[in-house]
Amino acid sequence: MVVRAAVAGASGYAGGELLRLLLTHPGTEIGALTGHSNAGQKLGALQPHLLPLADRVLEETAPEVLAGHDVVFLALPHGQSAAVAEQLGPDVLVVDMGADFRLKDPADWERFYGSAHAGTWPYGLPELPGGRAALEGSKRIAVPGCYPTAVSLALFPAYAAAIAENEAVVVAASGTSGAGKAARTHLLGSEVMGSMSPYGVGGVHRHTPEMIQNLSAAAGEPVTVSFTPTLAPMSRGILATCSAKARPGVGADAVRAAYAKAFADEPFVRLLPEGQWPATASVYGSNAVQVQVAYDEAAGRIIAVSAIDNLTKGTAGGALQSMNIALGLDESTGLSTIGVAP
Amino acid sequence: MVVRAAVAGASGYAGGELLRLLLTHPGTEIGALTGHSNAGQKLGALQPHLLPLADRVLEETAPEVLAGHDVVFLALPHGQSAAVAEQLGPDVLVVDMGADFRLKDPADWERFYGSAHAGTWPYGLPELPGGRAALEGSKRIAVPGCYPTAVSLALFPAYAAAIAENEAVVVAASGTSGAGKAARTHLLGSEVMGSMSPYGVGGVHRHTPEMIQNLSAAAGEPVTVSFTPTLAPMSRGILATCSAKARPGVGADAVRAAYAKAFADEPFVRLLPEGQWPATASVYGSNAVQVQVAYDEAAGRIIAVSAIDNLTKGTAGGALQSMNIALGLDESTGLSTIGVAP
Amino acid sequence: MVVRAAVAGASGYAGGELLRLLLTHPGTEIGALTGHSNAGQKLGALQPHLLPLADRVLEETAPEVLAGHDVVFLALPHGQSAAVAEQLGPDVLVVDMGADFRLKDPADWERFYGSAHAGTWPYGLPELPGGRAALEGSKRIAVPGCYPTAVSLALFPAYAAAIAENEAVVVAASGTSGAGKAARTHLLGSEVMGSMSPYGVGGVHRHTPEMIQNLSAAAGEPVTVSFTPTLAPMSRGILATCSAKARPGVGADAVRAAYAKAFADEPFVRLLPEGQWPATASVYGSNAVQVQVAYDEAAGRIIAVSAIDNLTKGTAGGALQSMNIALGLDESTGLSTIGVAP
Amino acid sequence: MVVRAAVAGASGYAGGELLRLLLTHPGTEIGALTGHSNAGQKLGALQPHLLPLADRVLEETAPEVLAGHDVVFLALPHGQSAAVAEQLGPDVLVVDMGADFRLKDPADWERFYGSAHAGTWPYGLPELPGGRAALEGSKRIAVPGCYPTAVSLALFPAYAAAIAENEAVVVAASGTSGAGKAARTHLLGSEVMGSMSPYGVGGVHRHTPEMIQNLSAAAGEPVTVSFTPTLAPMSRGILATCSAKARPGVGADAVRAAYAKAFADEPFVRLLPEGQWPATASVYGSNAVQVQVAYDEAAGRIIAVSAIDNLTKGTAGGALQSMNIALGLDESTGLSTIGVAP
Repeated sequence: MVVRAAVAGASGYAGGELLRLLLTHPGTEIGALTGHSNAGQKLGALQPHLLPLADRVLEETAPEVLAGHDVVFLALPHGQSAAVAEQLGPDVLVVDMGADFRLKDPADWERFYGSAHAGTWPYGLPELPGGRAALEGSKRIAVPGCYPTAVSLALFPAYAAAIAENEAVVVAASGTSGAGKAARTHLLGSEVMGSMSPYGVGGVHRHTPEMIQNLSAAAGEPVTVSFTPTLAPMSRGILATCSAKARPGVGADAVRAAYAKAFADEPFVRLLPEGQWPATASVYGSNAVQVQVAYDEAAGRIIAVSAIDNLTKGTAGGALQSMNIALGLDESTGLSTIGVAP
Repeated sequence: MVVRAAVAGASGYAGGELLRLLLTHPGTEIGALTGHSNAGQKLGALQPHLLPLADRVLEETAPEVLAGHDVVFLALPHGQSAAVAEQLGPDVLVVDMGADFRLKDPADWERFYGSAHAGTWPYGLPELPGGRAALEGSKRIAVPGCYPTAVSLALFPAYAAAIAENEAVVVAASGTSGAGKAARTHLLGSEVMGSMSPYGVGGVHRHTPEMIQNLSAAAGEPVTVSFTPTLAPMSRGILATCSAKARPGVGADAVRAAYAKAFADEPFVRLLPEGQWPATASVYGSNAVQVQVAYDEAAGRIIAVSAIDNLTKGTAGGALQSMNIALGLDESTGLSTIGVAP
Repeated sequence: MVVRAAVAGASGYAGGELLRLLLTHPGTEIGALTGHSNAGQKLGALQPHLLPLADRVLEETAPEVLAGHDVVFLALPHGQSAAVAEQLGPDVLVVDMGADFRLKDPADWERFYGSAHAGTWPYGLPELPGGRAALEGSKRIAVPGCYPTAVSLALFPAYAAAIAENEAVVVAASGTSGAGKAARTHLLGSEVMGSMSPYGVGGVHRHTPEMIQNLSAAAGEPVTVSFTPTLAPMSRGILATCSAKARPGVGADAVRAAYAKAFADEPFVRLLPEGQWPATASVYGSNAVQVQVAYDEAAGRIIAVSAIDNLTKGTAGGALQSMNIALGLDESTGLSTIGVAP
Repeated sequence: MVVRAAVAGASGYAGGELLRLLLTHPGTEIGALTGHSNAGQKLGALQPHLLPLADRVLEETAPEVLAGHDVVFLALPHGQSAAVAEQLGPDVLVVDMGADFRLKDPADWERFYGSAHAGTWPYGLPELPGGRAALEGSKRIAVPGCYPTAVSLALFPAYAAAIAENEAVVVAASGTSGAGKAARTHLLGSEVMGSMSPYGVGGVHRHTPEMIQNLSAAAGEPVTVSFTPTLAPMSRGILATCSAKARPGVGADAVRAAYAKAFADEPFVRLLPEGQWPATASVYGSNAVQVQVAYDEAAGRIIAVSAIDNLTKGTAGGALQSMNIALGLDESTGLSTIGVAP
């Protein structure tokens, strides 16, 4: 069986990464590609790294264009997915790479996104407890945000094992592709090269409630997350440095055991050997997640660090992994844990 | 009065940065420059950016070479400063840019550095409470580590004002020059470009006890610090993201007031206007420290972020600032808050 | 004497770099700062590295704002300088950092810029033969383009000494700040980091006729230049690799002698010792030019390489150097050959 | 048929890249992996991006280890390949990724490498005229150097079509991985980030005779090449800017026709649409070659620019492509033209 996939929003970074992966995914064929301001242009001018698709022309994101596909991926600005999804039948698998259907609590959505809540779809992070079951056979998938992917995978084992206090502190560094392809001054190469800077500080970043949602679910009780994102001088990658106080009586062995158990059978997450720490370069272009954890006895804290490629596991790879599950394919189809380094 | 300054260890990054600043410092003249494996070489081959010194030849780090100077800067590997300092008379101002004389507690030194404690010298971070008084007229100065400079300046206002609980969490990103000029595989450009990675995780980085020493002194009681350093793909700069729980009853106004007060008269530290966040590019090559602070109500935490140039304020600029104070010069002589950007 | 200087276009990269240098120039005081879309904003939000000017407010670029200054620097988009300059009296020194008054041949201007030629002003590259004399006492200065600065300095010694055939081939790599601060997709950090790419290939880059003008003047006969600019993943710096066939009978000694002679008394240009090659990092933030030259016997070509900081010597530093000459100040006032490295 | 492949020198960049590709090559299985100083170590510590091989242990590069494989790849320092190859039987396909067997003229080898010539093997650049025929069925392959790959592909069409004069000028920028993984000061991240610099200037780079050999063969007469390599602040990629005078009567149409013809049926080389120029980011991690060409009428020169990934098409991908041909597999097996961008 080969499914026919359309990509709405094929000119941006998320759409481009998805196409990169779809090109080698043996179970899909690439159907309609759409854009908005770029409709009518050849993909070769917009995504010059995708040579096999160079002569494909972008179409408008319209119902008749997206019709006739088995899977439709939405890589659209926040707030636009619901309208498009409604026009697709219930039998079409719709995979939303935007934020619209990630949050369960409408109040969270309204506070962080400032608009009406569109609903909640099955959440595409299979590694979370119960994550795969929620996706099997589903026709709608909300792909997680890039930061929540990195942070939830770094911390859920501690909460699932009840070894951490429910106040987490996260500082994450992201490559600039996470901010998208729209031209803005602060994202110019001249501004970002040689510079580290924080943004969205103080609990205001939109990915914060999504992390809280995931970790609270793993803990079975509310968890707070102090989240500070920083912009790093690289194109891709997220390094999430996460910590929480260890619960009384928890030591280094219990910490390691919790993480070893959580990832024992995961095809994409690797708990590194002790002493080796994740680097974003090692997961560049791959769907792998590298995780390491330590226990700081003096500070009494568990420190967990994860590295992902924000465009692959953090967006398009995660989307494909969830699609594979929803369609009943092998979860690893078309995905790998092999990074492009150095 | 012009003082004559020698630099022991002139071929490395700290020594080079010190020379860059000394070249425009109106109160000093550059005397002997020494190296070890590079003795006999011209500086032009080792520090090609210091054109005015290109024909100067490095000498051996020997007592007779360092004799006859008013100030001797030591940019030597850890553990070598004490032996050199002993041979210099008590009237010579010795400024140690290494770690040897920073820690007060010999047990801290022995645990983190694995050798016998050499002693404690006046600490070269004038912005700390009582910092300037300790330096005035001193003939020995221990220049702080780069991370402790960034972290102590970001957090001491919270502890001096007693608005923060005494458990701090710090994640800092440093440019690669902080790791020095010795050739090691993991510091190759091929390895670091496009990559973020942590190291020294779990409370084991040598700068940890120095931060604890500074913050505990500001708080008047023991403070723990969970410190995670990360290596960022840039040559220079440290971005320190620091947080601690706010004490009960503390809100955003109290937080801002504490920071405004702490830095009101500081020549090199600037609390940015609300809404603007530090970037390491903005302090590139300068002695400036950019600080911003926010209060995350949902998480109940104070988040303070600082940006410094690790080689300037974090090493050589801090050394000169302290020298100025010790010699009775204007503290800002030869130093500026003007970064080189973009 | 302290001259009062206004900067029209203070929010861009050229204007920011000029302010960085003016802040430490002992012979000037900073007067009006103007912008267009940014008028009314504080400089601290636009140029966060210029802390001493953070509270200065940008004004409109209007005659009454620019009036009352001894020097007015124009850092405006191409085509706007003439109108502003006309409104300034003949006794005001006007330094144009744009292209409008660089080219002598109106046909060149019209072909490459597509508009009517505004005129020709004394050219601000003092190192060229006769360069200083043209600037002394002048009230109008056309600051050279960044590429022509690097290329002309690398090649004019060969043409002035008549050792090179009159067909030059130049490939130059520039940091992204040369493309300015306007937000465009292809200049995003995500696009430029990790990538080298050419642009303006085939003799169509606007700086081409300016190079030809300079080198032809040095040669005393027409010189053709094949110029290919490339965009490099760095913020600052130009590395110009230039070559031409050696004239018959010319060997390595004659080549070196020509270059040694050309730069013997230059305060900012350094012919490096044999075997050492320029690096843009070595001139970062400085007005220095590093040059090296070799003779490739097998190919019969002279290869000359220069490195400059495109914003300093290539724009704002060159502007100040020329201003110093025009005003009768020491040419090096407020400028240095000390780079910020690593 | 699945062939069993050994990799001698699996801890370096070339070896790592080869393994990355072999992992998804359907016609091979990965046999022995050897190293020298790293023998006995797990690959996970040396190549952390190759998670599927993390537990594989490096063995010594010894005859008994390499025995029993169908293909042996040599990623060894120059001069070591001959001794290893001799010990492998004539039926084993030996693919040398080093320089030892590239040059036909022993005098060239001796002059540029300073040792005795080991011989000449079929040359692994199938796109050259007659390139594929030389590889079919061969049991020995000399993989081209990275620069010669980029330069030969950019220029051979001009020489094969006799439209260019036989004096070529090349300036190429390479990412740092081309210099290998051995730790040297000038390759530190601190040194290379933010910097462009030339090296091996004046015809002395070892890849020069290899380019001359290829282009002279295409031209059917001696071609000189003035080659200047530069080091760019990126991990991967080569951008080669190449030019030569057009022969009399040659215009833009003839130039384009020559290039269109040369690459019409090539699976990995794409002549970009007019107006679009190569970028190394677009071929990152892929075996693609992007080429563009222009005719500069004023300078009378053909300018051809190519972009490759130095580790993929420039080393390991080129090696696999040649292996495919030698083994009678489809030439594109396990290789793609899909880059990882942004």
